[in-house]
Amino acid sequence: MFRRFKNIESRRGFFEKKIKQPLSVFSFYPPGLSEAEKRNCENMIGAVQVPLGVAGPLRIKRAKSFHDYYLPLATTEGALVASVARGCKIITACGGASVLTENKGITRGSVFITGGILESRKLSDWLERHLEEFKSVASETSAHLELSQIFKRYFGNRLFIRFTFDSQDAMGMNMATIASEKIAAVITAKTGFKCLAIAANFDTDKKPSYLNFILGRGRAVWAEIELEEKLVMQILKTTPALIHEVNIEKNLHGSILSGSLGFNAHFANILAAIFLATGQDIAHVSEGNLGITSTKIINKSLTVSVYLPDLPIGTVGGGTYLPSQRAALQIMGVNGGGRGKKAAELAEIIGGAVLAGEISLLAAIASGTLGSSHQRLARSGR
Amino acid sequence: MFRRFKNIESRRGFFEKKIKQPLSVFSFYPPGLSEAEKRNCENMIGAVQVPLGVAGPLRIKRAKSFHDYYLPLATTEGALVASVARGCKIITACGGASVLTENKGITRGSVFITGGILESRKLSDWLERHLEEFKSVASETSAHLELSQIFKRYFGNRLFIRFTFDSQDAMGMNMATIASEKIAAVITAKTGFKCLAIAANFDTDKKPSYLNFILGRGRAVWAEIELEEKLVMQILKTTPALIHEVNIEKNLHGSILSGSLGFNAHFANILAAIFLATGQDIAHVSEGNLGITSTKIINKSLTVSVYLPDLPIGTVGGGTYLPSQRAALQIMGVNGGGRGKKAAELAEIIGGAVLAGEISLLAAIASGTLGSSHQRLARSGR
Amino acid sequence: MFRRFKNIESRRGFFEKKIKQPLSVFSFYPPGLSEAEKRNCENMIGAVQVPLGVAGPLRIKRAKSFHDYYLPLATTEGALVASVARGCKIITACGGASVLTENKGITRGSVFITGGILESRKLSDWLERHLEEFKSVASETSAHLELSQIFKRYFGNRLFIRFTFDSQDAMGMNMATIASEKIAAVITAKTGFKCLAIAANFDTDKKPSYLNFILGRGRAVWAEIELEEKLVMQILKTTPALIHEVNIEKNLHGSILSGSLGFNAHFANILAAIFLATGQDIAHVSEGNLGITSTKIINKSLTVSVYLPDLPIGTVGGGTYLPSQRAALQIMGVNGGGRGKKAAELAEIIGGAVLAGEISLLAAIASGTLGSSHQRLARSGR
Amino acid sequence: MFRRFKNIESRRGFFEKKIKQPLSVFSFYPPGLSEAEKRNCENMIGAVQVPLGVAGPLRIKRAKSFHDYYLPLATTEGALVASVARGCKIITACGGASVLTENKGITRGSVFITGGILESRKLSDWLERHLEEFKSVASETSAHLELSQIFKRYFGNRLFIRFTFDSQDAMGMNMATIASEKIAAVITAKTGFKCLAIAANFDTDKKPSYLNFILGRGRAVWAEIELEEKLVMQILKTTPALIHEVNIEKNLHGSILSGSLGFNAHFANILAAIFLATGQDIAHVSEGNLGITSTKIINKSLTVSVYLPDLPIGTVGGGTYLPSQRAALQIMGVNGGGRGKKAAELAEIIGGAVLAGEISLLAAIASGTLGSSHQRLARSGR
Repeated sequence: MFRRFKNIESRRGFFEKKIKQPLSVFSFYPPGLSEAEKRNCENMIGAVQVPLGVAGPLRIKRAKSFHDYYLPLATTEGALVASVARGCKIITACGGASVLTENKGITRGSVFITGGILESRKLSDWLERHLEEFKSVASETSAHLELSQIFKRYFGNRLFIRFTFDSQDAMGMNMATIASEKIAAVITAKTGFKCLAIAANFDTDKKPSYLNFILGRGRAVWAEIELEEKLVMQILKTTPALIHEVNIEKNLHGSILSGSLGFNAHFANILAAIFLATGQDIAHVSEGNLGITSTKIINKSLTVSVYLPDLPIGTVGGGTYLPSQRAALQIMGVNGGGRGKKAAELAEIIGGAVLAGEISLLAAIASGTLGSSHQRLARSGR
Repeated sequence: MFRRFKNIESRRGFFEKKIKQPLSVFSFYPPGLSEAEKRNCENMIGAVQVPLGVAGPLRIKRAKSFHDYYLPLATTEGALVASVARGCKIITACGGASVLTENKGITRGSVFITGGILESRKLSDWLERHLEEFKSVASETSAHLELSQIFKRYFGNRLFIRFTFDSQDAMGMNMATIASEKIAAVITAKTGFKCLAIAANFDTDKKPSYLNFILGRGRAVWAEIELEEKLVMQILKTTPALIHEVNIEKNLHGSILSGSLGFNAHFANILAAIFLATGQDIAHVSEGNLGITSTKIINKSLTVSVYLPDLPIGTVGGGTYLPSQRAALQIMGVNGGGRGKKAAELAEIIGGAVLAGEISLLAAIASGTLGSSHQRLARSGR
Repeated sequence: MFRRFKNIESRRGFFEKKIKQPLSVFSFYPPGLSEAEKRNCENMIGAVQVPLGVAGPLRIKRAKSFHDYYLPLATTEGALVASVARGCKIITACGGASVLTENKGITRGSVFITGGILESRKLSDWLERHLEEFKSVASETSAHLELSQIFKRYFGNRLFIRFTFDSQDAMGMNMATIASEKIAAVITAKTGFKCLAIAANFDTDKKPSYLNFILGRGRAVWAEIELEEKLVMQILKTTPALIHEVNIEKNLHGSILSGSLGFNAHFANILAAIFLATGQDIAHVSEGNLGITSTKIINKSLTVSVYLPDLPIGTVGGGTYLPSQRAALQIMGVNGGGRGKKAAELAEIIGGAVLAGEISLLAAIASGTLGSSHQRLARSGR
Repeated sequence: MFRRFKNIESRRGFFEKKIKQPLSVFSFYPPGLSEAEKRNCENMIGAVQVPLGVAGPLRIKRAKSFHDYYLPLATTEGALVASVARGCKIITACGGASVLTENKGITRGSVFITGGILESRKLSDWLERHLEEFKSVASETSAHLELSQIFKRYFGNRLFIRFTFDSQDAMGMNMATIASEKIAAVITAKTGFKCLAIAANFDTDKKPSYLNFILGRGRAVWAEIELEEKLVMQILKTTPALIHEVNIEKNLHGSILSGSLGFNAHFANILAAIFLATGQDIAHVSEGNLGITSTKIINKSLTVSVYLPDLPIGTVGGGTYLPSQRAALQIMGVNGGGRGKKAAELAEIIGGAVLAGEISLLAAIASGTLGSSHQRLARSGR
């Protein structure tokens, strides 16, 4: 089926005939997008278009300077862009967000089968002694990949290995898989133990997990801002005390009572919108949304702080080279590679954007305007 | 800032000037999309385009008939469409997937503040006796919404209430918020207790949670297929026994060891692609990815079964009316409203699609071809 | 081996010979204890003795009265009794704790095997229609047992059923098992579907689980006290503000960051000591320790509130009739049966005791005296 | 109140008067137990006695030898000793269990307060560079304690530090607290940052947590046995296939569906009984019960394997020196200190005992005799 048709148009024609309906709406896309059929999307019949809005400027403070960013947000959820924009406004008015990021590394978690716990332990010990060798193997698969560490756990006749890689500016999942397969082949060749599954959920890729929450994955990101009481009242129409109370009841108590791994208001919304705009793998929203929003009142000011331990992103590879996605990265000045610095900067911006989103939603809830703002901005039949 | 510019083009012009770069790639979209600036996306500057592929036909068995569907998948992850297509192929060859769905209802979880446990208990008891009244209030807010039940928990000076609604063919989050606010106002008027946060993570909206895993949210979906050994070997290049073993080690043991709520291979990938194609809220991938894939071997055949307890989707409202998104729904014949039946059918199709994705990825892992298939199909620098 | 020896002494003699060492320390127990070999402990060789301390009086407020209790605590952890005693002191000084309890019911969660999702659904629907019949079956197994509800979930070829029973003053696990087996036999007789495991962790018995956290098990208990600032400073040597801050950082943030189901300081310690003293099944500490401690400052006073959703306890059956255990229950006036009221009262007392323990430990941490108090009171080599 | 009475008897007299009832049942204990009032139990009024049974012999295989142990089990749960005894019987008949243990170390998790994320990061980096210094500080507090590592995480204005210690044969919680306090004092002296809570649930002590599940705490233990089909049928009255299926449905699927951290049948029961017999802190059952039971069928034989990542135990300190508790340790030959080897051996025995308990209960469930065996052996009114 994939090879029967020469191009996007003929494939689309096939489906138009099948469902007896024109599908010309899928033909609206810039010329370069058709390249995607070679590496991003098999059996391609065109494109879907998603509204793109912009929020900002969002000021981010660095050691001795600051930078103002505009945030591209692709979304169909009315009120989201407006909400983030409001968050950006108060952050910027208060001097800009502090941000931090750490390259936790992309991971691939594999499982090897042994004869039982004694062999599992033996293999685990053997691996410990051959880390340097695995690093060499990994580096041979790509100039942009380094194995940084392995984390192992075993029980019964199985040993799980979580390989962690520095993939610089790429999200790196595919590179990590290829390198892990090569390392696994070496392990099998030298020990005789076989890898049953190269991807065995010990990554944990595209699923929420406490392993990722605790050890981190992709980039870990922190962002923080101290909001003056006056500006909270003026811009957010509520008080520091009320936002603080809402944060404790909603993001701590509410999530605790629900058995949730997301101790935040709506990380997922902001991630989904930026991921989509910039060509990230949006399935990673499943793990990216983990994290904590904390608040603190000191001298009447409200400090809001977000922590995202598991943000797999990139500025090269995947969907980042597609026309509009690349342009979205360019709006923020973080397209292309730069020895990991571009992806780090993107992570910082996302941290700031998520902070803006949290502030605005917490304030909307605190002021009791959640429903009305959605009603006003999203007059759809939802 | 939002009102300064007349239209999408002038707004885009503003940003082009800001970042000194043309942003014409965002101008490729069908005429109708510009409507989105009124209800889906503030400060809109155009659209991003995402490659759309199609997998199928996917045969779904019903009580006395079957139906073949083509699946629209918007993605930038190379190999994904091909993988789902392979899953569809074997499902269809084996007679089609059985599917089930249940309308668990969209939820809004609010928190009320009381004077302590004695008052919390009193309020809880009071609510119990006024359910019918709340149902009336909810129905007045929309002809398409019914309050079906409330679930309460309290500790200390707070009472959490999870309102559950039947929103027919709409995902319904905004309707649920509006109705919850009206109910909350009634509660406050009659008891004096105030609602601190209408959205208090007891929903749990856009975060993974055990509450959703256990009680369900949106649609709960099941899909299942018995695969003949011969076809497994022929189409999937591996054996039922190996797929079964991979499922136990990866989706059960691997997820257990990681403290994950996703006991599956990659629900998130398929959800992200269909959600994006059909105008769903992609932030819901954060909860939709919860669920279990189970396998069983009986008489050499392999039965694969998926369970998604928390799938918030709709065929009306949100992004579903946008041009390409509506067309994607039309490809499957599930656009528009139909007293909940359209959304139920979409849920069933998604169940089948997720099943196809699980089968294909488990098989790729079992046959040891995960890395090579991605390398072949996604020759990007990732 | 069990039947070879006539009595405890001859059995002990056998082991003394085996290990070539006298074991007379096991012979110190009251005459009535030897009855235990018939129903509590096979192959009995005597008894271990555990130090018993008393804390209190602990004042508990009821609707129009209050009652002062002395708490029997069996423990080997130095400082524990002293710590609970300090908590009792301030609670009593502040007028006594408010307490609430709810009989959530003891549960048994079984799994039935079907032919797949369609049959699982069918069986689930069938069960729905036969609840009354199951209630009759359950009631026939014991005059002290009622089936109150069933909670079901299925995926693939399996259906999990959580039977919930009111077992009055008994913890009731064995009664619940027997009744569940009878109901399961009826289900199999009428539908042909077999129960693979009568105890299938859907209870969840003796394991921590979010299912129990959310739905409750055994008794749910709440206890609360408002502490005056002056007494906090005088008795606890710290301030309301500091205790409140410690509670948020330790019991909320610390537990969140650890992926814990226990959002409290040390419920387990108090439960272990009272369970042991009163003949409860101490393995239930595994689930009883789940729960939340919350604090609030209003007008300089500190309100501390505890919530235990999962406390399986009894005042009849199990180890409650053994000599010292019965005496421990008698100290609190809650021995024997009373249509569920005795167990409810015990639950309330435990709630108050746990509250006392939380207050005292939080204060010790806040005042920085955790290590020194243990060092002073527990001069062992630990 | 604590100092008013001279001794146990006068204190008991006080309570007898208070509740107007003789409490002489508490006076049955060996002479040495009264020492406990000095370091194990304040306000002591005597002792409770708990029935002690013995199961075994349990054969444990070592590298080139094996050893047979008798297991002291203090319990009031009828059928438990008999069940473990049956497990021991088949393990021993099949040649003995393989066991492994690893000293993960006892932990204390503290929280420091900073001015925000920038300072938190700075403090985190500073700690990294001073690990050796902290090791010196820890070693000065006890000749039996070594700081092995620190694990840190921060968000907002707080930094959590998990100090991990090797405490040799002691469970070590108190030693760890004292050493952590000393280290904390050094940190504050040198950096100015204050420790808000020395015990901040990042340990996680006496609460179940994924942090402990993933990183381990106390001793991690593994035990495994391959059971011949013939002996399974003869001794356990069921088949390897049925036990394997029960394990998957109960310990994997059932626990998954319940959101449990215990993927086992009843670790808690065996731990509670051995902990109580040997003077361990029984509140540690709350975390010790975490872990996984896995099964595998190869050539008709059934391999059962248990994994306990979080077992805090000791052979010195705490309640281990009390008369009957010490005797219980002596029965197994693991009393006293031995540079960590005694505690390791105890951990191995517990692993084997837990394995025996799992095998027997899984078999009872598989053969459908759970209720009847309890009914036969525990004829109490429970």
